[in-house]
Amino acid sequence: MEERLEKQLAFALEIDKEKNIFRQTSLSGHGRKENDAEHAWHIAIMAYLLREYANEKVDIAKVMLMCLIHDIVEIDAGDTYAYDAAGNATKAEREQKAADRLFGMLPEDQGREMRQLWDAFEAGSTPEARFANSLDRIQPLMLNYCKHGESWRTHGTRREQVEKRIQRIFEGSQVLGDMAEELIRRAAEEGLLK
Amino acid sequence: MEERLEKQLAFALEIDKEKNIFRQTSLSGHGRKENDAEHAWHIAIMAYLLREYANEKVDIAKVMLMCLIHDIVEIDAGDTYAYDAAGNATKAEREQKAADRLFGMLPEDQGREMRQLWDAFEAGSTPEARFANSLDRIQPLMLNYCKHGESWRTHGTRREQVEKRIQRIFEGSQVLGDMAEELIRRAAEEGLLK
Repeated sequence: MEERLEKQLAFALEIDKEKNIFRQTSLSGHGRKENDAEHAWHIAIMAYLLREYANEKVDIAKVMLMCLIHDIVEIDAGDTYAYDAAGNATKAEREQKAADRLFGMLPEDQGREMRQLWDAFEAGSTPEARFANSLDRIQPLMLNYCKHGESWRTHGTRREQVEKRIQRIFEGSQVLGDMAEELIRRAAEEGLLK
Repeated sequence: MEERLEKQLAFALEIDKEKNIFRQTSLSGHGRKENDAEHAWHIAIMAYLLREYANEKVDIAKVMLMCLIHDIVEIDAGDTYAYDAAGNATKAEREQKAADRLFGMLPEDQGREMRQLWDAFEAGSTPEARFANSLDRIQPLMLNYCKHGESWRTHGTRREQVEKRIQRIFEGSQVLGDMAEELIRRAAEEGLLK
């Protein structure tokens, strides 16, 4: 087998591990937590379906790819809960190291491309990255709301924390930001958020 | 909320159920079966990384989208094992009905677009569909080989059955078809396939 194809397959097999990195969000109706691969699949489809609400013109293939790979670093770095202050202090360093190793498995040109997409996603530095970030934040809000605020209640999350976190949605999509605020307002009214 | 956005979100929430449709393939290292959402995520990334091996020029956003949605019908129709003859006799009818209901939840223009992509995938009628089908068949072969033929041994699958199934890979990619044959040859040599 060609060396290039071997590297691509080794990477494809390695990322299988993302299916066992679990998040704090529960699925809508099955009593278990969601994993990173499922979450990425979900937001990639949502990105395509909701692309008409992006603030800026986006290359939708790039947005979908960013959605699909944005959590790959958690294979090494683990999932850090959005409202875990201690974990978030070391998150960037752990994830940079993971990105070096994982994207470094690919042929050089593809590793560089994936790394650029991931860096852009983290920094929110392109229209695609800003829209992908909107989806990354709207999806757990949607699931959480449907599960009657389960992970918010487990962690004692406050309304201000969620409101702060969803501000980034507005950078990618005004419409989805407005929708997020509406969901939070309803959640607070229903006593799901303190 | 606008009716259009409400329909899009209802669909986004409905497809969350795909995360609990389990396949016969096991993950590479965790002692559990893979679900449809994880599988779709995996082949969408593989499609992007391996697109240089497609036989025909493809619109990669369409290929990724096909990969992401190709198993959505199993929310209603369930997973049918590739080598289950009885199940496969009724599969098409069950899946058509599921496609009517699920894609029918979307705004009319988007429902029609998704249905066309799914129909094309099923029929292998476009370059994108042929390449997406190649990925759909190479990924379980890769995982199965890494798990020492676990699902083949469980079901008593024979080499000829797998060889027949992977023929469709060649329609989308000669290179990936050759690779599949090489994996089968190795699996047979190692006694993983009868």
